[in-house]
Amino acid sequence: MIPILTAFDASPDRGRGLARDTRVRWALEEVGQPYEVRYLSFAELKEPAHRALQPFGQIPTYEKGDLALWETGAIVLHIAETHAGLMPKDRNARAQTIAWMFAALSSVEPWILEIESTHFHDRGQAWGADRLAQAENRLRVRLDDLDRALGGKNWLIGEFTAADILMCSVLLRVKGEPVLDERPRLAAYLARGEARPAYQRSFAAQLEHYQRRHGAGS
Amino acid sequence: MIPILTAFDASPDRGRGLARDTRVRWALEEVGQPYEVRYLSFAELKEPAHRALQPFGQIPTYEKGDLALWETGAIVLHIAETHAGLMPKDRNARAQTIAWMFAALSSVEPWILEIESTHFHDRGQAWGADRLAQAENRLRVRLDDLDRALGGKNWLIGEFTAADILMCSVLLRVKGEPVLDERPRLAAYLARGEARPAYQRSFAAQLEHYQRRHGAGS
Repeated sequence: MIPILTAFDASPDRGRGLARDTRVRWALEEVGQPYEVRYLSFAELKEPAHRALQPFGQIPTYEKGDLALWETGAIVLHIAETHAGLMPKDRNARAQTIAWMFAALSSVEPWILEIESTHFHDRGQAWGADRLAQAENRLRVRLDDLDRALGGKNWLIGEFTAADILMCSVLLRVKGEPVLDERPRLAAYLARGEARPAYQRSFAAQLEHYQRRHGAGS
Repeated sequence: MIPILTAFDASPDRGRGLARDTRVRWALEEVGQPYEVRYLSFAELKEPAHRALQPFGQIPTYEKGDLALWETGAIVLHIAETHAGLMPKDRNARAQTIAWMFAALSSVEPWILEIESTHFHDRGQAWGADRLAQAENRLRVRLDDLDRALGGKNWLIGEFTAADILMCSVLLRVKGEPVLDERPRLAAYLARGEARPAYQRSFAAQLEHYQRRHGAGS
Protein backbone atom coordinates (compact mmCIF):
# COMPACT_ATOMS: atom_id res chain seq x y z
CA MET A 1 0.00 0.00 0.00
CA ILE A 2 1.41 3.36 -1.06
CA PRO A 3 1.34 6.11 1.61
CA ILE A 4 -0.13 9.45 0.63
CA LEU A 5 1.40 12.72 1.83
CA THR A 6 -0.03 16.19 1.67
CA ALA A 7 2.06 19.14 0.53
CA PHE A 8 1.57 22.76 -0.48
CA ASP A 9 0.29 23.12 -4.03
CA ALA A 10 2.16 26.44 -4.08
CA SER A 11 4.96 26.22 -1.51
CA PRO A 12 5.63 29.63 0.02
CA ASP A 13 9.38 28.94 -0.23
CA ARG A 14 9.09 28.63 -4.04
CA GLY A 15 10.62 25.18 -4.23
CA ARG A 16 13.59 25.73 -1.92
CA GLY A 17 12.69 22.51 -0.11
CA LEU A 18 12.04 24.08 3.27
CA ALA A 19 8.37 23.06 3.48
CA ARG A 20 8.08 20.17 5.87
CA ASP A 21 6.84 17.63 3.33
CA THR A 22 10.47 17.48 2.11
CA ARG A 23 11.46 15.96 5.46
CA VAL A 24 8.93 13.17 5.06
CA ARG A 25 9.85 12.65 1.40
CA TRP A 26 13.51 12.35 2.48
CA ALA A 27 12.68 9.69 5.08
CA LEU A 28 10.63 7.72 2.54
CA GLU A 29 13.41 7.97 -0.06
CA GLU A 30 15.98 6.73 2.49
CA VAL A 31 13.94 3.58 3.15
CA GLY A 32 12.95 3.07 -0.48
CA GLN A 33 9.23 3.52 0.11
CA PRO A 34 7.32 4.97 -2.89
CA TYR A 35 4.64 7.50 -2.03
CA GLU A 36 1.99 9.69 -3.57
CA VAL A 37 1.32 13.35 -2.85
CA ARG A 38 -1.96 15.19 -2.56
CA TYR A 39 -1.31 18.88 -3.17
CA LEU A 40 -3.46 21.39 -1.29
CA SER A 41 -4.17 25.07 -1.83
CA PHE A 42 -3.93 27.45 1.12
CA ALA A 43 -7.75 27.54 1.22
CA GLU A 44 -8.00 23.74 1.26
CA LEU A 45 -5.55 23.56 4.18
CA LYS A 46 -8.00 25.43 6.39
CA GLU A 47 -11.10 23.50 5.37
CA PRO A 48 -12.73 20.97 7.71
CA ALA A 49 -11.75 18.01 5.51
CA HIS A 50 -8.06 18.73 6.02
CA ARG A 51 -8.40 19.88 9.61
CA ALA A 52 -9.88 16.47 10.41
CA LEU A 53 -6.46 15.09 9.43
CA GLN A 54 -4.36 17.99 10.74
CA PRO A 55 -5.87 20.11 13.53
CA PHE A 56 -3.69 23.12 12.76
CA GLY A 57 -4.47 23.08 9.05
CA GLN A 58 -0.86 22.42 8.05
CA ILE A 59 1.12 20.06 5.87
CA PRO A 60 2.40 17.35 5.82
CA THR A 61 0.01 14.56 6.71
CA TYR A 62 0.63 10.86 6.10
CA GLU A 63 -2.09 8.36 5.25
CA LYS A 64 -1.57 4.66 4.72
CA GLY A 65 -4.65 2.47 4.68
CA ASP A 66 -6.58 3.33 7.81
CA LEU A 67 -3.57 4.98 9.49
CA ALA A 68 -3.66 8.78 9.46
CA LEU A 69 -0.74 10.64 10.94
CA TRP A 70 0.43 14.27 11.23
CA GLU A 71 3.25 16.31 12.75
CA THR A 72 6.49 15.84 10.83
CA GLY A 73 8.31 14.42 13.84
CA ALA A 74 5.62 11.80 14.43
CA ILE A 75 5.51 10.86 10.74
CA VAL A 76 9.28 10.49 10.43
CA LEU A 77 9.37 8.49 13.67
CA HIS A 78 6.63 6.20 12.31
CA ILE A 79 8.54 5.66 9.06
CA ALA A 80 11.73 4.95 11.00
CA GLU A 81 9.97 2.44 13.24
CA THR A 82 8.24 0.56 10.41
CA HIS A 83 11.10 0.38 7.87
CA ALA A 84 14.74 -0.61 8.15
CA GLY A 85 17.51 1.94 7.89
CA LEU A 86 16.67 4.99 10.00
CA MET A 87 16.42 3.66 13.56
CA PRO A 88 19.15 1.68 15.31
CA LYS A 89 18.13 -1.59 16.95
CA ASP A 90 20.31 -1.10 20.03
CA ARG A 91 18.14 0.21 22.88
CA ASN A 92 20.44 3.06 23.87
CA ALA A 93 21.16 4.14 20.31
CA ARG A 94 17.41 4.14 19.63
CA ALA A 95 16.80 6.28 22.72
CA GLN A 96 19.47 8.76 21.62
CA THR A 97 17.98 8.90 18.13
CA ILE A 98 14.54 9.77 19.47
CA ALA A 99 16.04 12.34 21.85
CA TRP A 100 17.80 14.04 18.93
CA MET A 101 14.57 13.97 16.90
CA PHE A 102 12.75 15.88 19.62
CA ALA A 103 15.81 18.12 20.09
CA ALA A 104 15.85 19.13 16.42
CA LEU A 105 12.21 20.19 16.51
CA SER A 106 11.91 21.49 20.10
CA SER A 107 15.38 22.73 21.05
CA VAL A 108 16.91 23.99 17.79
CA GLU A 109 14.22 24.83 15.22
CA PRO A 110 12.20 27.23 17.44
CA TRP A 111 15.26 29.48 17.76
CA ILE A 112 15.63 29.60 13.99
CA LEU A 113 11.91 30.20 13.51
CA GLU A 114 12.09 33.10 15.94
CA ILE A 115 14.67 34.70 13.66
CA GLU A 116 12.50 34.07 10.60
CA SER A 117 9.52 35.46 12.44
CA THR A 118 11.54 38.57 13.32
CA HIS A 119 12.57 39.00 9.68
CA PHE A 120 8.98 38.63 8.57
CA HIS A 121 7.12 40.65 11.19
CA ASP A 122 9.65 43.24 12.27
CA ARG A 123 11.35 44.14 9.04
CA GLY A 124 11.00 47.85 8.58
CA GLN A 125 10.04 48.31 12.22
CA ALA A 126 12.26 50.43 14.38
CA TRP A 127 13.01 47.50 16.67
CA GLY A 128 13.81 44.98 13.93
CA ALA A 129 17.61 45.07 14.08
CA ASP A 130 17.76 44.82 17.87
CA ARG A 131 15.35 41.91 17.97
CA LEU A 132 17.29 40.12 15.28
CA ALA A 133 20.58 40.51 17.13
CA GLN A 134 19.01 39.10 20.30
CA ALA A 135 17.52 36.11 18.51
CA GLU A 136 20.76 35.40 16.65
CA ASN A 137 22.75 35.44 19.87
CA ARG A 138 20.42 32.89 21.40
CA LEU A 139 20.70 30.68 18.32
CA ARG A 140 24.51 30.87 18.43
CA VAL A 141 24.51 29.38 21.92
CA ARG A 142 22.39 26.46 20.74
CA LEU A 143 24.48 25.87 17.64
CA ASP A 144 27.67 25.91 19.71
CA ASP A 145 26.15 23.18 21.87
CA LEU A 146 25.12 21.21 18.79
CA ASP A 147 28.59 21.65 17.27
CA ARG A 148 30.22 20.36 20.44
CA ALA A 149 27.87 17.36 20.60
CA LEU A 150 28.46 16.44 16.96
CA GLY A 151 32.21 16.74 17.45
CA GLY A 152 34.12 14.75 14.85
CA LYS A 153 31.27 12.34 14.10
CA ASN A 154 29.67 12.15 10.67
CA TRP A 155 26.16 11.93 12.12
CA LEU A 156 24.57 12.76 15.47
CA ILE A 157 24.87 9.31 17.01
CA GLY A 158 27.60 8.06 14.68
CA GLU A 159 25.52 6.20 12.09
CA PHE A 160 22.90 7.99 9.97
CA THR A 161 19.44 7.97 11.54
CA ALA A 162 16.05 9.68 11.35
CA ALA A 163 17.47 12.30 13.73
CA ASP A 164 19.87 13.48 11.02
CA ILE A 165 16.98 13.93 8.59
CA LEU A 166 15.29 16.27 11.05
CA MET A 167 18.40 18.09 12.24
CA CYS A 168 19.79 18.66 8.73
CA SER A 169 16.34 19.83 7.60
CA VAL A 170 16.28 22.33 10.46
CA LEU A 171 19.79 23.55 9.64
CA LEU A 172 18.81 24.02 5.98
CA ARG A 173 16.88 27.06 7.19
CA VAL A 174 20.19 28.83 7.95
CA LYS A 175 22.22 27.38 5.05
CA GLY A 176 24.72 29.91 3.75
CA GLU A 177 24.18 32.28 6.65
CA PRO A 178 27.07 33.36 8.90
CA VAL A 179 25.57 31.62 11.94
CA LEU A 180 26.12 28.29 10.17
CA ASP A 181 29.21 29.07 8.11
CA GLU A 182 31.08 30.23 11.22
CA ARG A 183 30.73 26.64 12.45
CA PRO A 184 32.46 24.60 9.73
CA ARG A 185 31.74 21.24 11.34
CA LEU A 186 28.00 21.97 11.29
CA ALA A 187 28.17 23.32 7.74
CA ALA A 188 29.98 20.13 6.67
CA TYR A 189 27.40 18.01 8.50
CA LEU A 190 24.61 19.72 6.58
CA ALA A 191 26.53 19.29 3.30
CA ARG A 192 26.81 15.54 4.02
CA GLY A 193 23.07 15.41 4.54
CA GLU A 194 22.34 17.31 1.33
CA ALA A 195 24.71 15.05 -0.60
CA ARG A 196 22.71 11.91 0.20
CA PRO A 197 20.94 10.59 -2.90
CA ALA A 198 17.70 10.21 -0.92
CA TYR A 199 17.78 13.90 0.01
CA GLN A 200 18.54 14.85 -3.59
CA ARG A 201 15.52 12.88 -4.79
CA SER A 202 13.24 14.42 -2.17
CA PHE A 203 14.42 17.93 -3.05
CA ALA A 204 14.01 17.30 -6.79
CA ALA A 205 10.50 15.90 -6.31
CA GLN A 206 9.19 18.94 -4.46
CA LEU A 207 10.93 21.33 -6.87
CA GLU A 208 9.52 19.48 -9.87
CA HIS A 209 5.99 20.05 -8.62
CA TYR A 210 6.65 23.70 -7.94
CA GLN A 211 8.10 24.27 -11.39
CA ARG A 212 5.36 22.33 -13.16
CA ARG A 213 2.77 24.32 -11.29
CA HIS A 214 4.36 27.75 -11.62
CA GLY A 215 6.65 27.50 -14.61
CA ALA A 216 10.36 26.83 -14.35
CA GLY A 217 11.22 30.48 -14.78
CA SER A 218 9.07 31.81 -11.96
CA MET B 1 15.67 -0.45 39.17
CA ILE B 2 14.73 3.10 40.11
CA PRO B 3 15.15 5.73 37.37
CA ILE B 4 17.06 8.89 38.22
CA LEU B 5 15.98 12.29 36.92
CA THR B 6 17.88 15.55 36.97
CA ALA B 7 16.19 18.79 38.00
CA PHE B 8 17.17 22.35 38.90
CA ASP B 9 18.49 22.62 42.44
CA ALA B 10 17.06 26.15 42.39
CA SER B 11 14.27 26.24 39.82
CA PRO B 12 14.04 29.66 38.17
CA ASP B 13 10.25 29.49 38.46
CA ARG B 14 10.51 29.28 42.27
CA GLY B 15 8.53 26.07 42.57
CA ARG B 16 5.65 26.93 40.23
CA GLY B 17 6.11 23.56 38.53
CA LEU B 18 6.95 24.93 35.09
CA ALA B 19 10.44 23.42 34.92
CA ARG B 20 10.34 20.45 32.62
CA ASP B 21 11.24 17.83 35.23
CA THR B 22 7.63 18.22 36.45
CA ARG B 23 6.42 16.73 33.15
CA VAL B 24 8.56 13.64 33.64
CA ARG B 25 7.58 13.36 37.32
CA TRP B 26 3.92 13.53 36.24
CA ALA B 27 4.38 10.69 33.74
CA LEU B 28 6.16 8.55 36.33
CA GLU B 29 3.44 9.25 38.91
CA GLU B 30 0.72 8.28 36.41
CA VAL B 31 2.31 4.87 35.85
CA GLY B 32 3.24 4.35 39.51
CA GLN B 33 6.99 4.28 38.92
CA PRO B 34 9.07 5.55 41.87
CA TYR B 35 12.07 7.68 40.94
CA GLU B 36 14.99 9.56 42.42
CA VAL B 37 16.15 13.06 41.58
CA ARG B 38 19.64 14.42 41.25
CA TYR B 39 19.52 18.19 41.71
CA LEU B 40 21.97 20.33 39.77
CA SER B 41 23.16 23.89 40.19
CA PHE B 42 23.25 26.19 37.16
CA ALA B 43 27.04 25.77 37.09
CA GLU B 44 26.78 21.97 37.16
CA LEU B 45 24.33 22.03 34.23
CA LYS B 46 27.00 23.47 31.97
CA GLU B 47 29.82 21.17 33.07
CA PRO B 48 31.09 18.38 30.81
CA ALA B 49 29.71 15.65 33.11
CA HIS B 50 26.16 16.84 32.56
CA ARG B 51 26.65 17.82 28.93
CA ALA B 52 27.65 14.21 28.25
CA LEU B 53 24.08 13.35 29.26
CA GLN B 54 22.39 16.46 27.84
CA PRO B 55 24.16 18.26 24.99
CA PHE B 56 22.40 21.57 25.67
CA GLY B 57 23.18 21.54 29.40
CA GLN B 58 19.51 21.40 30.38
CA ILE B 59 17.23 19.40 32.63
CA PRO B 60 15.60 16.89 32.77
CA THR B 61 17.59 13.77 31.99
CA TYR B 62 16.49 10.21 32.72
CA GLU B 63 18.86 7.40 33.64
CA LYS B 64 17.84 3.83 34.30
CA GLY B 65 20.60 1.26 34.41
CA ASP B 66 22.63 1.74 31.26
CA LEU B 67 19.87 3.72 29.52
CA ALA B 68 20.45 7.46 29.43
CA LEU B 69 17.81 9.67 27.88
CA TRP B 70 17.13 13.40 27.46
CA GLU B 71 14.60 15.76 25.87
CA THR B 72 11.34 15.78 27.80
CA GLY B 73 9.32 14.53 24.84
CA ALA B 74 11.64 11.56 24.33
CA ILE B 75 11.64 10.73 28.05
CA VAL B 76 7.85 10.87 28.37
CA LEU B 77 7.49 8.79 25.19
CA HIS B 78 9.89 6.20 26.63
CA ILE B 79 7.94 6.03 29.89
CA ALA B 80 4.67 5.68 27.97
CA GLU B 81 6.08 2.89 25.82
CA THR B 82 7.53 0.90 28.71
CA HIS B 83 4.71 1.17 31.26
CA ALA B 84 0.95 0.67 30.98
CA GLY B 85 -1.44 3.58 31.16
CA LEU B 86 -0.20 6.41 28.96
CA MET B 87 -0.15 4.95 25.45
CA PRO B 88 -3.13 3.29 23.76
CA LYS B 89 -2.54 -0.12 22.23
CA ASP B 90 -4.64 0.56 19.12
CA ARG B 91 -2.32 1.46 16.24
CA ASN B 92 -4.21 4.55 15.15
CA ALA B 93 -4.78 5.85 18.66
CA ARG B 94 -1.06 5.37 19.36
CA ALA B 95 -0.19 7.32 16.20
CA GLN B 96 -2.50 10.15 17.22
CA THR B 97 -1.00 10.21 20.71
CA ILE B 98 2.53 10.57 19.34
CA ALA B 99 1.37 13.24 16.87
CA TRP B 100 -0.14 15.25 19.74
CA MET B 101 3.05 14.82 21.78
CA PHE B 102 5.12 16.38 19.01
CA ALA B 103 2.39 18.99 18.47
CA ALA B 104 2.48 20.11 22.10
CA LEU B 105 6.25 20.67 21.99
CA SER B 106 6.71 21.80 18.36
CA SER B 107 3.42 23.47 17.36
CA VAL B 108 2.09 25.03 20.57
CA GLU B 109 4.88 25.57 23.12
CA PRO B 110 7.18 27.62 20.83
CA TRP B 111 4.44 30.24 20.43
CA ILE B 112 4.12 30.53 24.19
CA LEU B 113 7.88 30.64 24.67
CA GLU B 114 8.10 33.46 22.15
CA ILE B 115 5.77 35.48 24.36
CA GLU B 116 7.84 34.64 27.45
CA SER B 117 10.98 35.58 25.56
CA THR B 118 9.40 38.89 24.56
CA HIS B 119 8.45 39.57 28.18
CA PHE B 120 11.96 38.77 29.32
CA HIS B 121 14.09 40.42 26.65
CA ASP B 122 11.93 43.28 25.45
CA ARG B 123 10.37 44.54 28.65
CA GLY B 124 11.22 48.19 28.95
CA GLN B 125 12.20 48.38 25.30
CA ALA B 126 10.27 50.68 23.04
CA TRP B 127 9.12 47.80 20.87
CA GLY B 128 8.01 45.51 23.70
CA ALA B 129 4.27 46.12 23.55
CA ASP B 130 4.06 45.76 19.77
CA ARG B 131 6.06 42.54 19.77
CA LEU B 132 3.91 41.13 22.53
CA ALA B 133 0.69 41.90 20.66
CA GLN B 134 2.05 40.17 17.55
CA ALA B 135 3.12 37.08 19.45
CA GLU B 136 -0.19 36.88 21.31
CA ASN B 137 -2.17 37.09 18.09
CA ARG B 138 -0.21 34.18 16.66
CA LEU B 139 -0.77 32.13 19.82
CA ARG B 140 -4.52 32.84 19.68
CA VAL B 141 -4.74 31.24 16.24
CA ARG B 142 -3.01 28.12 17.52
CA LEU B 143 -5.16 27.90 20.64
CA ASP B 144 -8.33 28.30 18.56
CA ASP B 145 -7.18 25.32 16.48
CA LEU B 146 -6.43 23.34 19.63
CA ASP B 147 -9.80 24.28 21.13
CA ARG B 148 -11.59 23.12 17.99
CA ALA B 149 -9.66 19.84 17.94
CA LEU B 150 -10.36 19.11 21.59
CA GLY B 151 -14.05 19.89 21.10
CA GLY B 152 -16.19 18.26 23.75
CA LYS B 153 -13.70 15.51 24.58
CA ASN B 154 -12.13 15.22 28.03
CA TRP B 155 -8.68 14.49 26.60
CA LEU B 156 -7.01 14.99 23.22
CA ILE B 157 -7.76 11.57 21.79
CA GLY B 158 -10.65 10.76 24.15
CA GLU B 159 -8.82 8.73 26.80
CA PHE B 160 -5.99 10.22 28.88
CA THR B 161 -2.55 9.69 27.31
CA ALA B 162 1.03 10.94 27.46
CA ALA B 163 -0.03 13.65 25.00
CA ASP B 164 -2.24 15.23 27.65
CA ILE B 165 0.68 15.36 30.08
CA LEU B 166 2.67 17.37 27.56
CA MET B 167 -0.17 19.56 26.30
CA CYS B 168 -1.46 20.42 29.79
CA SER B 169 2.11 21.15 30.89
CA VAL B 170 2.50 23.53 27.95
CA LEU B 171 -0.81 25.24 28.73
CA LEU B 172 0.23 25.69 32.37
CA ARG B 173 2.54 28.41 31.07
CA VAL B 174 -0.50 30.57 30.26
CA LYS B 175 -2.70 29.49 33.17
CA GLY B 176 -4.84 32.38 34.39
CA GLU B 177 -3.97 34.57 31.42
CA PRO B 178 -6.69 35.95 29.14
CA VAL B 179 -5.46 33.94 26.15
CA LEU B 180 -6.45 30.76 28.02
CA ASP B 181 -9.41 32.01 30.05
CA GLU B 182 -11.10 33.33 26.89
CA ARG B 183 -11.24 29.67 25.77
CA PRO B 184 -13.23 27.97 28.55
CA ARG B 185 -12.96 24.49 27.06
CA LEU B 186 -9.17 24.72 27.10
CA ALA B 187 -9.15 26.18 30.59
CA ALA B 188 -11.37 23.29 31.77
CA TYR B 189 -9.08 20.80 30.01
CA LEU B 190 -6.10 22.19 31.88
CA ALA B 191 -8.05 22.11 35.16
CA ARG B 192 -8.84 18.42 34.57
CA GLY B 193 -5.13 17.77 34.07
CA GLU B 194 -4.16 19.66 37.20
CA ALA B 195 -6.81 17.79 39.22
CA ARG B 196 -5.26 14.39 38.52
CA PRO B 197 -3.67 12.94 41.66
CA ALA B 198 -0.51 12.09 39.71
CA TYR B 199 -0.11 15.71 38.66
CA GLN B 200 -0.71 16.87 42.21
CA ARG B 201 2.01 14.55 43.50
CA SER B 202 4.48 15.70 40.84
CA PHE B 203 3.77 19.34 41.59
CA ALA B 204 4.11 18.79 45.35
CA ALA B 205 7.40 16.93 44.94
CA GLN B 206 9.11 19.69 42.98
CA LEU B 207 7.71 22.37 45.31
CA GLU B 208 8.85 20.45 48.37
CA HIS B 209 12.43 20.51 47.11
CA TYR B 210 12.26 24.18 46.31
CA GLN B 211 10.91 25.05 49.73
CA ARG B 212 13.37 22.82 51.58
CA ARG B 213 16.23 24.39 49.65
CA HIS B 214 15.10 28.00 49.88
CA GLY B 215 12.80 28.19 52.85
CA ALA B 216 9.04 28.05 52.62
CA GLY B 217 8.71 31.79 52.90
CA SER B 218 10.96 32.70 50.00
